[in-house]
Amino acid sequence: MTTPWAQRYALRTHSMSSSAIRELLKLTQQPDIISFAGGLPAPELFPIEEMKTACDVVLSEMGARALQYSTTEGYAPLREMLARHMARYGIKVDVDNIVITSGSQQALDLIGKLLINSGDRILTENPSYLGAIQAFTAYQAQYVTVPIDDDGLQVAQLEAALRTGPKFMYILPNFQNPTGVTLSLTRRYDLIALAEEYGIPIVEDDPYGQLRFEGEHLKPLVTLDAEYEGCEGNGSYTGNVIYTSTFSKTLAPGLRLGWIVAPKDVVSKLVQMKQGTDLHTSSFDQMVAYEVARGGFLDKHVRDIREVYRRRRDLMLQTMEETFPAEVRWTRPQGGLFLWVTTPESINTTELLKEAIQQKVAFVPGHSFHPTGGGHNTLRLNFSNASEDMIVDGIRRMSVALKQQLAPQSLVFPVH
Amino acid sequence: MTTPWAQRYALRTHSMSSSAIRELLKLTQQPDIISFAGGLPAPELFPIEEMKTACDVVLSEMGARALQYSTTEGYAPLREMLARHMARYGIKVDVDNIVITSGSQQALDLIGKLLINSGDRILTENPSYLGAIQAFTAYQAQYVTVPIDDDGLQVAQLEAALRTGPKFMYILPNFQNPTGVTLSLTRRYDLIALAEEYGIPIVEDDPYGQLRFEGEHLKPLVTLDAEYEGCEGNGSYTGNVIYTSTFSKTLAPGLRLGWIVAPKDVVSKLVQMKQGTDLHTSSFDQMVAYEVARGGFLDKHVRDIREVYRRRRDLMLQTMEETFPAEVRWTRPQGGLFLWVTTPESINTTELLKEAIQQKVAFVPGHSFHPTGGGHNTLRLNFSNASEDMIVDGIRRMSVALKQQLAPQSLVFPVH
Repeated sequence: MTTPWAQRYALRTHSMSSSAIRELLKLTQQPDIISFAGGLPAPELFPIEEMKTACDVVLSEMGARALQYSTTEGYAPLREMLARHMARYGIKVDVDNIVITSGSQQALDLIGKLLINSGDRILTENPSYLGAIQAFTAYQAQYVTVPIDDDGLQVAQLEAALRTGPKFMYILPNFQNPTGVTLSLTRRYDLIALAEEYGIPIVEDDPYGQLRFEGEHLKPLVTLDAEYEGCEGNGSYTGNVIYTSTFSKTLAPGLRLGWIVAPKDVVSKLVQMKQGTDLHTSSFDQMVAYEVARGGFLDKHVRDIREVYRRRRDLMLQTMEETFPAEVRWTRPQGGLFLWVTTPESINTTELLKEAIQQKVAFVPGHSFHPTGGGHNTLRLNFSNASEDMIVDGIRRMSVALKQQLAPQSLVFPVH
Repeated sequence: MTTPWAQRYALRTHSMSSSAIRELLKLTQQPDIISFAGGLPAPELFPIEEMKTACDVVLSEMGARALQYSTTEGYAPLREMLARHMARYGIKVDVDNIVITSGSQQALDLIGKLLINSGDRILTENPSYLGAIQAFTAYQAQYVTVPIDDDGLQVAQLEAALRTGPKFMYILPNFQNPTGVTLSLTRRYDLIALAEEYGIPIVEDDPYGQLRFEGEHLKPLVTLDAEYEGCEGNGSYTGNVIYTSTFSKTLAPGLRLGWIVAPKDVVSKLVQMKQGTDLHTSSFDQMVAYEVARGGFLDKHVRDIREVYRRRRDLMLQTMEETFPAEVRWTRPQGGLFLWVTTPESINTTELLKEAIQQKVAFVPGHSFHPTGGGHNTLRLNFSNASEDMIVDGIRRMSVALKQQLAPQSLVFPVH
């Protein structure tokens, strides 16, 4: 049923993409389907007992403060802890460079709200994170894309895209969503130099950087930029990068807690935007998360998550090796939550999904992750959420679906 | 210090108002100042023990669900409870007419994001809620205003404003922020008829409607509109009003929980907007709020809040009668959190605030609540947050400041 409202918002939603992730999340709720579709963390690792203790401490000792209105920037002890925590990953900034957001999805929305005017071009990797595309498209963004390979963004192809004058580049350097690939250190240096040369800023989205299973941590773009600009380590970052991360993959997504690191003048504008958007993020959740995370628990917990996800990734890769048709290729991520599958061109993965659902397994077709179209023979698999048994069963079901689709069609549907 | 970013967001923030509420909230944190500035509920009424129990129940029985990603619409049992709860205030809608938001501030942001295009005119009461003006201005709204009196919006003056073609009307019918006045039932009927005649929808903001201390509950605009449109009571509201309310004034603002009631096609678009904005509101906070509120606690708790706030209002009004200069006038709200003071034209209340801070008392100057300017001799007082002793002391300090400002200036500062 439509109401007289439809005509009133026609303009504002004309370019919103169909809500692919959301419709697929509904599928994952069917109990007999093994879903590799969502980007869900493993719920059995949620720190439930620590949350109980933290809620009790926060409510007993600071209850009135936790339940009252608070400042838009976020809970100061949490921001101070984040400054210390990020320093261990090479990001050395002041507490004034940090604003707490309602998940990193809100970080992307606030960045879009601050920077994007109707028709502005945003440069993204191809494919890129669907939630970012949704966030930016709400502000009527257009897209220019640069392909990726096993070393991430193909920086050699960047200049042509930069010459189109994008408002900013949106980059996921670590275990990228959806492909799982990581931007090499050489390319990071090249990217920072080109950003400076063309005067195009970078939005660095890093939800998974702490979840590296093997190999060496690579310096974040915000750190390399601070070194390049000569403003590192002095707590007054004034560079070219807005960095965002989240507690969703290390504590719990249900709390909706993320953060932005940016130059102080940008933080001040983002805070002004956030005030009009939701006043502030739940003070209770911020204080509880601080109580859970502090005193070394977060680092220990992240190590536990890495170990479980590494085993799941290994098992998924091994089962794919054993069962997938030879024509199918896939990435081998060094961390994160996802890997990326490329099928022969003859397969359309949206059609494959229908077959997969028959086999009681689900994934996300790759097409939606391509802001400028394409990717019909690609798909994303999540390895963090399913148990080891389900990973083996689910991948076997996937391989049945793949073989069905690769079987000569004339045998199944006679041409007529 | 500014960075190269400044030029990049120049356009997006050129019309953002200065952050008056935020700067003033900082003042309220000075411990020796009695603040009537914020819109803060009484923290001593927060249901801290009930929250503790609820956190324990939620984490013990549904921990993995509370900490995981969830659906954008919100926690179904909470939405069902809201449908039942609102029915007792005359709003009879389906659960599908309801979306949970991160406070009603986010409701205003999502409505702005859905409906406002750059340069669109929004019709507001004059004065109106500063947070709404901030939310809408972020989407480059312009304003057309209609004055209010003790019966709320002067509907007799509405038609001229409607002829300018506003995108929607933003109305606070109950114990309006900032003035505390309530729209009379006669005017509500007239407003609904004019909205229909001119085809201009209404955004009804009702954070305080449950906090009526005396007199009869008046039907909300969404209810009158459903009656007018003949779609009431059948659970398929298709009318002309988007209604929003919040748990901030009845449970706790720190949880950032509000909701929107709208026709189902509008809800579906708002959900799409919200997904790109923050995926969903904290599942943990939603489930905890449901556990606290259910089983009749919310109704009982609201009765307790009404009783405390009524006493505080009475004491504030009585102390004002006893101490304020005769030239000063004020409203006598039947509920809510605020009252509104009009001083003689000779006083500029921003100047008065400086004097008041000397006297260790704070309020919000009325100017910022006027989207199209004016109101230099008005101010807002909050009576919900301060204890009874503080109300008496603070109002006495206010009267000292007022008398200072009203004293013949030549005696204080010789003309030279």
